[in-house]
Amino acid sequence: MSGEEAPTQQQEPEQEKQPEEPPPPPAAAAAAAADPAAAPAAAAAPQESAGSKPAAEEKRLSFRALVLTGHGGYDKVKLQVKTQAEPQLKAGEVLVRVKACGLNFAELLGRQGLYELLPAPPVVMGMEGSGVIEAVGEDVKDRKVGDRVIVMSRNGMWQEVVVAPANHTFPMPEQMSFEEGAAIPVNYMTAYMMLFEMANLRPGKSVLVHMAAGGVGVAATQLCKTVPDVTVFGTASASKHETIAEGGVTHPIDYRTKDYVEEIRKISPKGVDIVLDPLGGLDTQKGFSLLKPLGMLIVFGAANCVTGQKKNLLAMAKTWYNQLSLNTLKLMQANKAVCGFHLGYITDEQLLSSNMSKLLELYGQGQIKPRIDSCYHFEEVTDAMRRMHERQNIGKVILLPEPKKVEEEKPKSDPEPVENVEKSEAAVSEKKEEATEEVKAEKD
Amino acid sequence: MSGEEAPTQQQEPEQEKQPEEPPPPPAAAAAAAADPAAAPAAAAAPQESAGSKPAAEEKRLSFRALVLTGHGGYDKVKLQVKTQAEPQLKAGEVLVRVKACGLNFAELLGRQGLYELLPAPPVVMGMEGSGVIEAVGEDVKDRKVGDRVIVMSRNGMWQEVVVAPANHTFPMPEQMSFEEGAAIPVNYMTAYMMLFEMANLRPGKSVLVHMAAGGVGVAATQLCKTVPDVTVFGTASASKHETIAEGGVTHPIDYRTKDYVEEIRKISPKGVDIVLDPLGGLDTQKGFSLLKPLGMLIVFGAANCVTGQKKNLLAMAKTWYNQLSLNTLKLMQANKAVCGFHLGYITDEQLLSSNMSKLLELYGQGQIKPRIDSCYHFEEVTDAMRRMHERQNIGKVILLPEPKKVEEEKPKSDPEPVENVEKSEAAVSEKKEEATEEVKAEKD
Repeated sequence: MSGEEAPTQQQEPEQEKQPEEPPPPPAAAAAAAADPAAAPAAAAAPQESAGSKPAAEEKRLSFRALVLTGHGGYDKVKLQVKTQAEPQLKAGEVLVRVKACGLNFAELLGRQGLYELLPAPPVVMGMEGSGVIEAVGEDVKDRKVGDRVIVMSRNGMWQEVVVAPANHTFPMPEQMSFEEGAAIPVNYMTAYMMLFEMANLRPGKSVLVHMAAGGVGVAATQLCKTVPDVTVFGTASASKHETIAEGGVTHPIDYRTKDYVEEIRKISPKGVDIVLDPLGGLDTQKGFSLLKPLGMLIVFGAANCVTGQKKNLLAMAKTWYNQLSLNTLKLMQANKAVCGFHLGYITDEQLLSSNMSKLLELYGQGQIKPRIDSCYHFEEVTDAMRRMHERQNIGKVILLPEPKKVEEEKPKSDPEPVENVEKSEAAVSEKKEEATEEVKAEKD
Repeated sequence: MSGEEAPTQQQEPEQEKQPEEPPPPPAAAAAAAADPAAAPAAAAAPQESAGSKPAAEEKRLSFRALVLTGHGGYDKVKLQVKTQAEPQLKAGEVLVRVKACGLNFAELLGRQGLYELLPAPPVVMGMEGSGVIEAVGEDVKDRKVGDRVIVMSRNGMWQEVVVAPANHTFPMPEQMSFEEGAAIPVNYMTAYMMLFEMANLRPGKSVLVHMAAGGVGVAATQLCKTVPDVTVFGTASASKHETIAEGGVTHPIDYRTKDYVEEIRKISPKGVDIVLDPLGGLDTQKGFSLLKPLGMLIVFGAANCVTGQKKNLLAMAKTWYNQLSLNTLKLMQANKAVCGFHLGYITDEQLLSSNMSKLLELYGQGQIKPRIDSCYHFEEVTDAMRRMHERQNIGKVILLPEPKKVEEEKPKSDPEPVENVEKSEAAVSEKKEEATEEVKAEKD
């Protein structure tokens, strides 16, 4: 796959030129839409293709996309400009011009080949975004052109335009920025479902939030504060303590210099009621030991598997080896609950939709507000990934499809300066399942 | 231990005579009370010892007790009359004349030597009862003589009089019968904590209740109905379906003639939200497979271990072999929760107390009402155990300390007639930890 790449540095992305062909037959398009949980199709002919030359034909469209071209380090994510036929919107679909996308830990895993739900490269990653509806298909009654919406997807959100089922879009409250909208789905749905669907967070309970300055950590903290008298223990490096305390963490704990189990036991000898565990391995065992009777441990990640930029077999083996293994007798004697949570495996549309509605309601009431750590333009994706990988962020890292303007010298926030940023563009055909048919049709 | 037994049939229990000695020194008595979670001490000199000759001395007391004399079949539980010095109530203790006790599955296990929390025989079993306070110790302010109370204990409730910490007693609502009071603690606390402390039962959810006609089953069904729009799948043999349906089971399923997994899938293809599993083994695996995403399996027993009257190593091995074993990765991919619950391992007084208060409130509101299957006098304990063992009961089986009157020919309800009932009495010294000191003191 890398043979197809033509990386260039500090250049405008090249436009991908495709032979001029009619759009794919409706059958193929319909097939792509059959699975409502599938990723949005790469999409749509806007009036002007931002950041690249206007398409030669009325029926062509050009758009910027971040493509994972293979598994490995930061350089595997390339900015490309795609040109393809304008897709026909199928019944129930909408075309969205994406204004902001969320970066998640899942994409760091995906890049390393550790996220089993991501199709093989080349593939456009991205599970969440926000934007403006530019067209609606038949039978779409509750969305209209111009609506500002949040979009959820399995992948494929890191591009300028997407086609999505209308019921994967959620109208944004007026006061919500695109950055905020893109920050809600993955982090807040994860935190909300864990705390209120799986666990039974009630007044007086205590919660251990690991990586409390991360996207899920900030969301979980805010959601904990929607319930009276909840104590939040939050781990983060010391430099972030002031910020997370302001955000609602009752007891910030520096996991780098202290044993968080001991620290928690000092404050609450009986332990905690709920542990949200994105780490895996030994930390899962520690979390289980920290639970009070009737307490619940929710494992929702294995961040301990990830060390360097690339897949680390030793870290994976250690995490796996130290994984908590349980039988029901042990659980009975301990009166404890162990759960697994993975948003990616939840396919119940109604469940997702009802949880999103609750979150938008909480936002409307001012009870939650995404904390945006930093925004990076697509061409700065390496910086964005590095910031999250090195856990420099406090809150959400956002990607902006719109090209960086020349006068903008650095991202909107102030991340550590990073050298050797490789900005790569290529003219690789998009081989994502949904798009394959279209590309083939064009090439026939 | 069996050498000490002197079983007689169809006779009044013999009175255990002890040398006349002063009461034990306060130090020994205080030691027995040091652990608030310990069983109530055998106890107290009432004005007249029911069902036996009045004690010779003012300071002596006689009382009937069901003593587990060894591990094995029904005959290991013997009715004995004990005579001992009147105990001195310590600060915070009350003396209760027991009017009704609950029989639980735990006691069937305990008799077989399968209940690890029960001290070695000889021991008085029984974890719940109701009665009237006859004396209060110092510092007891919120209980007074004459109060009708529910009593919870680790064991030792199957006797006419008990000494218990006042905070292990709960005043009974006026309209509650002693039988109802004795039916609440174990079954309702178990069901309540599972549904509302561990799980997060909310409107619209579905619950699988195994052994829906059993004590916990009936309690769980009633508690499910306190939440709007909850669907209850309940397994029971066909003859009980009408009754459990009246009690609130939405879909009774005959587990003896049908595969309950198939039956549930026919009605609810996606499965259920909560499974309460008292069975263990293969049924735990089936329960896990039946869970919807974000669903929760709560294992709270291993009834599949129990087949005949005595310990069955093969059944235990099978249950153990088929036990669900989990790792967190599997839980994440499934988005499911697995919990263990065991009331006996919960030692948090405040937790127990607050849950009991909620249950008494629900009773007061008419939202729950224990269903009494049958009442057996102490001398009929074999019939009682057999009824539960053979799963003939619908609701709670109650034991009455008061001797059966001659004109009473059968228990108050109408259980199957049972032949070969062995009614055993003996004059074995009570060797329960708490009582040992006292007995020794008397013998010195």
